[in-house]
Amino acid sequence: MNREQLIAQIKKKQSFLCVGLDTDINKIPKHLLELEDPIFEFNKQIIDSTKEFCVAYKPNIAFYESMGVSGWESLQKTLDYIPENIFTIADAKRGDIGNTSSMYARAFFENMNFDSVTVAPYMGSDSVTPFLAFEDKWAIVLALTSNKGGLDFQTIKGGNGKPLFKQVLETSKNWGTDANMMYVVGATRAEQLSEIREIIPDHFILVPGVGAQGGNLQDVAKYGMNADCGLLVSSSRGIIYAGNDFDFAEKSRIEAEKLQQEMASLLSLKGI
Amino acid sequence: MNREQLIAQIKKKQSFLCVGLDTDINKIPKHLLELEDPIFEFNKQIIDSTKEFCVAYKPNIAFYESMGVSGWESLQKTLDYIPENIFTIADAKRGDIGNTSSMYARAFFENMNFDSVTVAPYMGSDSVTPFLAFEDKWAIVLALTSNKGGLDFQTIKGGNGKPLFKQVLETSKNWGTDANMMYVVGATRAEQLSEIREIIPDHFILVPGVGAQGGNLQDVAKYGMNADCGLLVSSSRGIIYAGNDFDFAEKSRIEAEKLQQEMASLLSLKGI
Repeated sequence: MNREQLIAQIKKKQSFLCVGLDTDINKIPKHLLELEDPIFEFNKQIIDSTKEFCVAYKPNIAFYESMGVSGWESLQKTLDYIPENIFTIADAKRGDIGNTSSMYARAFFENMNFDSVTVAPYMGSDSVTPFLAFEDKWAIVLALTSNKGGLDFQTIKGGNGKPLFKQVLETSKNWGTDANMMYVVGATRAEQLSEIREIIPDHFILVPGVGAQGGNLQDVAKYGMNADCGLLVSSSRGIIYAGNDFDFAEKSRIEAEKLQQEMASLLSLKGI
Repeated sequence: MNREQLIAQIKKKQSFLCVGLDTDINKIPKHLLELEDPIFEFNKQIIDSTKEFCVAYKPNIAFYESMGVSGWESLQKTLDYIPENIFTIADAKRGDIGNTSSMYARAFFENMNFDSVTVAPYMGSDSVTPFLAFEDKWAIVLALTSNKGGLDFQTIKGGNGKPLFKQVLETSKNWGTDANMMYVVGATRAEQLSEIREIIPDHFILVPGVGAQGGNLQDVAKYGMNADCGLLVSSSRGIIYAGNDFDFAEKSRIEAEKLQQEMASLLSLKGI
């Protein structure tokens, strides 16, 4: 999916919601466990219930990888089930030397047909650029994450007074364009989005952690939204585990719709 | 495998060689392609030919992941085939928030029974510590990599004049011990190993890139070896693609033995 198509979807649905499919066999409703592929069955019902309200789905690859071969099969089926007009993110946080990153890019873009992959910047340019060589595909680079450890290195100030995450933004934005790169910025660091917008005014920013991790949607929009919206805000546990019984999908629908409604107001304030 | 067992193997085999199983379907001898699982068949013959001379095997996970479900099956079969007294490294460069890193740790340590996983440090403590919670298992943290992009961020000097990779070493060494953590340092940065040894005198260092990537074994030993050896030096293409015909395994044996012989001299110089 390209940038124009993504923006068109955001306008049409009045939503910049990304649903995180962090599907854990130990957390899904018990009645699904009798089915042949409980993970896919769960995802299928979540997708049916939320697809009206979101513009992206983001399976965290660890949850599938931890299930072995059957997990990869569930992931492929899930991806095939997601409607074509919804953006897909492989939340994989990959990154290796050039020829190896190319292998990862092929795995997610060609074998599985994801629109985008999250990548870690520590190994620098040649670990990221192989993900930029595919038409209408995206690399989403970690900049500032919302976990506790995000403060260990990302905020270390360089000799020029600039924290590492800003250096990552400034250096890496030249590797691609705002049509094939996005950045991850955690929601609990919302106020830093305005400083980040000075460096990357036009790029999309993927903001995980609204909901369960405590981020605030109003603040994210206030500091991070640009004229094209420029945001994908992800919620996972708050939506997919809203219920834990036969009505889990209906409950996920309610939570997704709540967020979409809030997003619609924020978009209309900006005239989008 | 624990630290004492690893050191015992190094002494016994007079080797600190790690063979990188970066097995690419496009590079293996053509006659293998007729077999049911060419990737595993290739690895099996490489293992048979080199196991006498090495103390570790390191499959780069990207090569298997890029093959989809069949790649994961080849990887599992390969891992099951590696003799128990040889250390195994999942070169996966994973790293995510705490509960997600736990999933990756389970995938590699429990489902697949690897001894260790390479991890990226960008997301900080909670992205690494879940890998330290398993008995006799190891996290191998990226410190200074030998690829071109390794200079983009890893060598940025902080306000205190310290490059990022040294800050990563100093901070992260407190998350675990020299019995459950190692570090990756690229061979083309061999002279920096002596500065690194000032920070982590006792930890094992995994040095990829001797051979095809141009690193020099003598320098690595000179600057990086400690009283327990403290090194695993990895060679991949130089060994596994030494030949490309029916005699590929025999040729890999010759290259592995050459490196082992050189390592034996370096170890004996140190009285190990």
